[in-house]
Amino acid sequence: MAGPPILSPTLEGIEIGRSSISWVGGETGELVYRGFDVRTLVPGLPYESAVALLLTGDPPTEDPSREVTAALGASREIPAPLLAAADALPSTLPPLDALRTLLSLLGDGTYAYPPDRAQGYRLIARLPILLARHVRRARGTAPVPPAPGLSHAANYLRMLRGEAAPDRHVRALESYLVLLADHGMNASTFALRVAISTETDLVSAATAALGTLKGPLHGGAPSRVSEMLDGIGHPEDAARWIGERLARREVLYGFGHRAYKTEDPRAVLLHSIAREVADPRRLALAEAVERAGLEALRRAHPGARLYANVEFYSAVVLEAIGLPPELFTPTFAVARTVGWTAHAIEQAGANKLIRPDVEYVGPPKGRTWPRPLSGR
Amino acid sequence: MAGPPILSPTLEGIEIGRSSISWVGGETGELVYRGFDVRTLVPGLPYESAVALLLTGDPPTEDPSREVTAALGASREIPAPLLAAADALPSTLPPLDALRTLLSLLGDGTYAYPPDRAQGYRLIARLPILLARHVRRARGTAPVPPAPGLSHAANYLRMLRGEAAPDRHVRALESYLVLLADHGMNASTFALRVAISTETDLVSAATAALGTLKGPLHGGAPSRVSEMLDGIGHPEDAARWIGERLARREVLYGFGHRAYKTEDPRAVLLHSIAREVADPRRLALAEAVERAGLEALRRAHPGARLYANVEFYSAVVLEAIGLPPELFTPTFAVARTVGWTAHAIEQAGANKLIRPDVEYVGPPKGRTWPRPLSGR
Repeated sequence: MAGPPILSPTLEGIEIGRSSISWVGGETGELVYRGFDVRTLVPGLPYESAVALLLTGDPPTEDPSREVTAALGASREIPAPLLAAADALPSTLPPLDALRTLLSLLGDGTYAYPPDRAQGYRLIARLPILLARHVRRARGTAPVPPAPGLSHAANYLRMLRGEAAPDRHVRALESYLVLLADHGMNASTFALRVAISTETDLVSAATAALGTLKGPLHGGAPSRVSEMLDGIGHPEDAARWIGERLARREVLYGFGHRAYKTEDPRAVLLHSIAREVADPRRLALAEAVERAGLEALRRAHPGARLYANVEFYSAVVLEAIGLPPELFTPTFAVARTVGWTAHAIEQAGANKLIRPDVEYVGPPKGRTWPRPLSGR
Repeated sequence: MAGPPILSPTLEGIEIGRSSISWVGGETGELVYRGFDVRTLVPGLPYESAVALLLTGDPPTEDPSREVTAALGASREIPAPLLAAADALPSTLPPLDALRTLLSLLGDGTYAYPPDRAQGYRLIARLPILLARHVRRARGTAPVPPAPGLSHAANYLRMLRGEAAPDRHVRALESYLVLLADHGMNASTFALRVAISTETDLVSAATAALGTLKGPLHGGAPSRVSEMLDGIGHPEDAARWIGERLARREVLYGFGHRAYKTEDPRAVLLHSIAREVADPRRLALAEAVERAGLEALRRAHPGARLYANVEFYSAVVLEAIGLPPELFTPTFAVARTVGWTAHAIEQAGANKLIRPDVEYVGPPKGRTWPRPLSGR
């Protein structure tokens, strides 16, 4: 690049490249996968078909995608030494820390650069299996092996619960997984592309992405929405609780998103799914908290375009289908593995090392060490 | 940022922020840590003093730094459940894949954001211990516990070998660790800062960095230098071997660096260290390969300013002190942990989410799914 350096600590307004995978319409509240508005796909699109769409660029020839269903099914058997290593993790590890290690553990040298669809299917199939196994071990319950014939979503819930989940829970999870499958150049996807740009392997890059997703400014916050709802307890206490929190200058989780200047379409869809699966009292509490939060935030930041974000109703949906809060972000990662794979393949297809500059503002060169150093 | 978006797939010329840690003088061949030219520090600076300098900004009051020596020593005892989990990894895992999982495993929930020096000391102390333990187990040998009183470099070599290393090997490793401790905004450090910008924890961010370092365009190539030297065998065969390789349009590892338009100061220093520790025949072979490689590359790319890079003489030094090639990149990571920690602390000190944009070039929105979806 010619010209003087450009200082951009957030990279806002810097396009890191061209992508055909998803488009985030921040001004209009749209999310588009390969040309398909997610509002035309959810509810109803099987996760396997979303995987096929994101990884190939086109809808599969049938729903659920036969190719993806077969590939995920064929990858469910994890080599015994990896299972043994997974079972040796301290069961007290927080699930998200465990998941990062389990994801890394899947990288056993068999994911060579460049990444491809077959590697992606293997990763997508195996990550929730190791996660569910860890969760059940932490609870002191026996692992539930993956069930042949079950969809990705149904199998995940069954492995966690130990029994088949009701259809409406499976459908709700399926919608959640589809809606969280990709989202433009978010921070975790960007970290993955930086990693892939060195020609590292898919698992290393996905581990970089998961470590980035873990931060509360990205994917690490939805459990805090549940904690907030628990803390508030009753709809009529929402305004007071939120007012006190903002007065202490604490963050209100579940509101606002860097990309969206209007309603996040995922939040809208998850809200309508919550209406189907959530306990009516919990839903009423969430809606009261949403109203009170928006009122308070808009009073505090006049002119700011603030809305409930995807984490707000993600939390309501995921708790309604029986997931404990500490599994919200891990389940986000389970959904996003396909997006990470798609971006890894796309990055590798026209790869250049991503390496920004930095302005050095430390002491000028020429300092001398205050003592003689040995061996000089 | 106002104005139209800027397309920059490599981020060259984009300054991601301001940093006081290290300055890379690509035009003049300089590397400066907190104002100190590394050529005034190596050989002779104890690694512990480099850690103190990079993490605090100033030289410690004595060499080796008493604070760092004490902190690293106090962190060497790793909790038994983590050791048990480490010992359950398949011993057949490639060392770099094992190291990524071992690093992740250290993140047991006790590294909360924001990162600090105490967390860094713990990570720096423990990573080589788990690495050496894995390597010895893979060889079928018993682990060697860390030795109180030994320096970081001496302890690392002793844990790998099972006996104290000769002083000149320890000094050579110490110089290597100091020289590789930090290097501006390289890809792994950048991935770490992207991760930290979401307020994730230090271990998650360092795991992102390690996954990025692993790529051959960043830190994953030095073992290929040793393989190249082995493949060439005799100095007089260098020109022919290299000519054939370039004729097949294959990459010649160990030459060229994105930042340096002149000799990399680390390569110069490692070359002089190689003169002290390498077998004279191996050194003569390496020097012949360097000459032949530069001649061939400059003929193929007239006008390009190409030099042996840090990986070239890193490989010669590390093999001379008894490290097998598969430990070169892991040892690079052991050296760089301090730089990653320094950048994590600096990023957290004035944190903003790093999230670039991307230009969507996929199918335009408005595609319709070819079949009705169930439940709609």
